[in-house]
Amino acid sequence: MSEKRMLFVLREVEPWNMPDDIYRLNPSGSLPIFVYDGNVIAGNYAISEYLEETDKENKLMPEDPKARAEIRRLIEWFDTKFYNEVYKNIVAEKVQKRFGKGEAPDSRILKVGFNNLNYHMEYIDWLCERNNFLVDTGFSTADLAAAAHLSIVDYLGDVPWDSYKNAKLWYSKIKSRPSFKELLKDTIKGILPAKHYTNLDF
Amino acid sequence: MSEKRMLFVLREVEPWNMPDDIYRLNPSGSLPIFVYDGNVIAGNYAISEYLEETDKENKLMPEDPKARAEIRRLIEWFDTKFYNEVYKNIVAEKVQKRFGKGEAPDSRILKVGFNNLNYHMEYIDWLCERNNFLVDTGFSTADLAAAAHLSIVDYLGDVPWDSYKNAKLWYSKIKSRPSFKELLKDTIKGILPAKHYTNLDF
Repeated sequence: MSEKRMLFVLREVEPWNMPDDIYRLNPSGSLPIFVYDGNVIAGNYAISEYLEETDKENKLMPEDPKARAEIRRLIEWFDTKFYNEVYKNIVAEKVQKRFGKGEAPDSRILKVGFNNLNYHMEYIDWLCERNNFLVDTGFSTADLAAAAHLSIVDYLGDVPWDSYKNAKLWYSKIKSRPSFKELLKDTIKGILPAKHYTNLDF
Repeated sequence: MSEKRMLFVLREVEPWNMPDDIYRLNPSGSLPIFVYDGNVIAGNYAISEYLEETDKENKLMPEDPKARAEIRRLIEWFDTKFYNEVYKNIVAEKVQKRFGKGEAPDSRILKVGFNNLNYHMEYIDWLCERNNFLVDTGFSTADLAAAAHLSIVDYLGDVPWDSYKNAKLWYSKIKSRPSFKELLKDTIKGILPAKHYTNLDF
């Protein structure tokens, strides 16, 4: 929304303690939810496509359908594959499990997550070496999706940046965008971010 | 693709026995993959949006961005929520586990799946009572996504249609479409479909 120069107010919700009114806004009970002028747009997929369709000025996808398909393939990669292989094993294990269930993370599950993360970092590194951004048509919603997923793992200090120079250079470009600088000020209550988290040089 | 009057050839792949060349077409190794004229479009999300963007005649989404957002919300519902709550507990348990691991389904997991399925059927029934189709703008990709997910559970004979009259009427309309009649001829090797599976009256 910042990339599209929209003004908005964020509402904080703890996913492990979902308030009842969320189900009135989105029957699936999941986030994100975008509310404006009495309209409700629910879910990553619907919101990102809606913002792109209704904004004619700050486009985050090119016109060419094949280029758009490549961007959407990568968004699905991060929302599904990265989520299942990395997020669930690292972030859900360290954050949701702690605040939702009061339990400590299982080191075997974390190890699976770290191994998978290396595989994903290799892929990001390879894409960024060829394209500067994730796709060859420039900065897009694919970069935002990837960086959003990565930043929470980075908050926990678990991204091995130094082994992936192209990915690191790409992420420093994303971090320096005004939209992303604001996001990096956000914190998880009770967990301090890794020391390098908000640094543009890391 | 049939709804868009495209001619195509299907290639059969067993998800529990993925051939290596699938990874060359889609690095995530997941299906579906759409190949034409040397182009590769990979994943539900990219393919369905690509087909809709490049076909001007047989539209499966209306022009209005809010109506499109509602369709996409429901597609995400079925691809994520239905998939995790129903498909994984019933289809993955009965089919993938059998052919992939040679194991019998776990009745406790199946029971969770059947309970979740009732909740999803209630929601489909409620939507169809208001709209005839899943959204009030008529037949759309949301109906195709929902029917695709449901049909595999129906193949196994596990959908309690008689408790959900509006959902049943909706599904009989989907089944009578030429595009869907062809799909219903498809079978899973080694598992016979439920007796009513291809019947338009069920």
